[in-house]
Amino acid sequence: MKALVYHGPGLKSLDERPIPELAEPTDAIVRVMRTTICGTDLHILKGDVPSCEPGRILGHEGVGIVQRVGSAISTLSEGDHVLISCISACGRCDYCRRGMYSHCATGGWILGNRIDGTQAEYVRIPHAETSLYRIPQDLDEEALVMLSDILPTGFECGVLNGKVQPGCTVAIVGAGPIGLASLLTAQFYSPGQIIMIDHDPNRLEMAHRFGATACIDGGRADAVAEVMRLTDSVGVDCAIEAVGIPATFELCESLVAPGGVIANIGVHGVKADLHLEKLWDRNIVITTRLVDTASTPMLLKTVRSGKLDPKQLITHRFPLSEIAAAYDTFGHAGETRALKVIIEVS
Amino acid sequence: MKALVYHGPGLKSLDERPIPELAEPTDAIVRVMRTTICGTDLHILKGDVPSCEPGRILGHEGVGIVQRVGSAISTLSEGDHVLISCISACGRCDYCRRGMYSHCATGGWILGNRIDGTQAEYVRIPHAETSLYRIPQDLDEEALVMLSDILPTGFECGVLNGKVQPGCTVAIVGAGPIGLASLLTAQFYSPGQIIMIDHDPNRLEMAHRFGATACIDGGRADAVAEVMRLTDSVGVDCAIEAVGIPATFELCESLVAPGGVIANIGVHGVKADLHLEKLWDRNIVITTRLVDTASTPMLLKTVRSGKLDPKQLITHRFPLSEIAAAYDTFGHAGETRALKVIIEVS
Repeated sequence: MKALVYHGPGLKSLDERPIPELAEPTDAIVRVMRTTICGTDLHILKGDVPSCEPGRILGHEGVGIVQRVGSAISTLSEGDHVLISCISACGRCDYCRRGMYSHCATGGWILGNRIDGTQAEYVRIPHAETSLYRIPQDLDEEALVMLSDILPTGFECGVLNGKVQPGCTVAIVGAGPIGLASLLTAQFYSPGQIIMIDHDPNRLEMAHRFGATACIDGGRADAVAEVMRLTDSVGVDCAIEAVGIPATFELCESLVAPGGVIANIGVHGVKADLHLEKLWDRNIVITTRLVDTASTPMLLKTVRSGKLDPKQLITHRFPLSEIAAAYDTFGHAGETRALKVIIEVS
Repeated sequence: MKALVYHGPGLKSLDERPIPELAEPTDAIVRVMRTTICGTDLHILKGDVPSCEPGRILGHEGVGIVQRVGSAISTLSEGDHVLISCISACGRCDYCRRGMYSHCATGGWILGNRIDGTQAEYVRIPHAETSLYRIPQDLDEEALVMLSDILPTGFECGVLNGKVQPGCTVAIVGAGPIGLASLLTAQFYSPGQIIMIDHDPNRLEMAHRFGATACIDGGRADAVAEVMRLTDSVGVDCAIEAVGIPATFELCESLVAPGGVIANIGVHGVKADLHLEKLWDRNIVITTRLVDTASTPMLLKTVRSGKLDPKQLITHRFPLSEIAAAYDTFGHAGETRALKVIIEVS
């Protein structure tokens, strides 16, 4: 089969690899129909993710058709159309029983990281019954690729952790795909304001279209002053960090109101300054989270009922044979205006 | 009347001052029976609290007898024995209605800070009906001084924010009065382990007596290694910071388990390093809080039912005339082994 293989920092190629086989009775083999590229894949290619070793097939998102199931599988069958979760979960360890699937003792984010991933014609999914979701017949399968990672991440790490409530004020720092996923799912809870902050006018325009009540170009305006103007000088109830650098996290510290929450989504490579000298008495909460995908069934229902349209996050499509061009397009989003790029596998 | 007056950094004296008068219909004048000294009073004397201006009577803790009430007061009467909360709360502003009394628009921590305090024979209490608690007759009034600030602080900012649960593991960094208040009130929730970390062997011995399951002398042992040994290399579900310096906060970052909470109590003067590069994917929560004293009625019930003995935090007693010696004793706790010192006023 064809598969996109990581060969070390800066190196990848579309190689010929054997079709994966069942390794455990709880495995399934899935024929991939659609997959996509994540910001994390770019991190891997920069050499930032040491757990991902050369030789690994990349990708942790996708939809496909079950091809074979292990002997322990009873809730999935050959031919089932399934959504592949970016998080593999045994469902039985202590963390899984607490709903912290991201920390599963034998799972977590392993696809396209510690084991071969979805940017290939076939993929082996461990703990298949608790890591795949059968797709209702009436849904647009391609759009559901957005539910493998980006939408549950924006929703769980941003909106749920950020305790978005009816009438509250939300600032989202970073209008990339993840920030936009938070923007879309924050609206489930009818906040009073959703203020998007970014440096890219194109992404801010997109944010405006996706329902932001105000957009601040951090390169042109003083974001703190603008947010204070919009919130009666109080700050926001919920500040969502969707970039992953110290400056944006520290901006959230300046935006949060007394009693508010800073919900971190960003993948950080270095420490940030925590201004406890200003925050110790402000009754705030800071949260971090690797997506658990515990909300995937709920998000499927919101798509089905028309409350969420994941398709609008998709800007480009490429066949698997042109995946190198897809990486280029996604990696230069400033010029290409890409949000999410779909890879059409079969 | 006699009152302990702050005269600028390093300067205080027991002066003669007029007895305070009712200023608002919602005020009460309380004759102080017992008060105490808080670590915050020492901060003021160092000049660290600019909101407290020279000429201010210090003190925000105490018990006393209602002497006069304003015309709007209907639930308190002359002669009532009352506990004075360190937080004044109007009960009517937006923050008060959310239970965030510490951020009351016309209250919060104002006693002995923005208005004259309790280290005096009489004190004016604003918003008296929602800032004083009538003392049940069968209780030891002196011991209740511990409920003005220290016990609700340790309980709300440490134990409640830290989500202490039955069977969970807790580390408390700092075995001073506030850390010990957390230790005492954490036991309401039957945690599996409470590990105290401090540099003072005397305080650790006290912690052991107060119910700590393990004590680590951070000056002699590697606290992180010890906590990991005690927790199957996972870390603690709840790390309570009860010191207020970067090193102790950062220690909590190293102690917290995936899915755990860092509950900050310490008053910080400078920023700390937040190691998001290690914490971004660990599903942790960090909380800050100025005590709201929302739990005072609950704590009064725990004292009454024998679940909490606040008296054990009191190590020294001085008459008001010797309050200078009381400050010396409290300010040199390393030598004097002082926890809380009671000032006997009347």
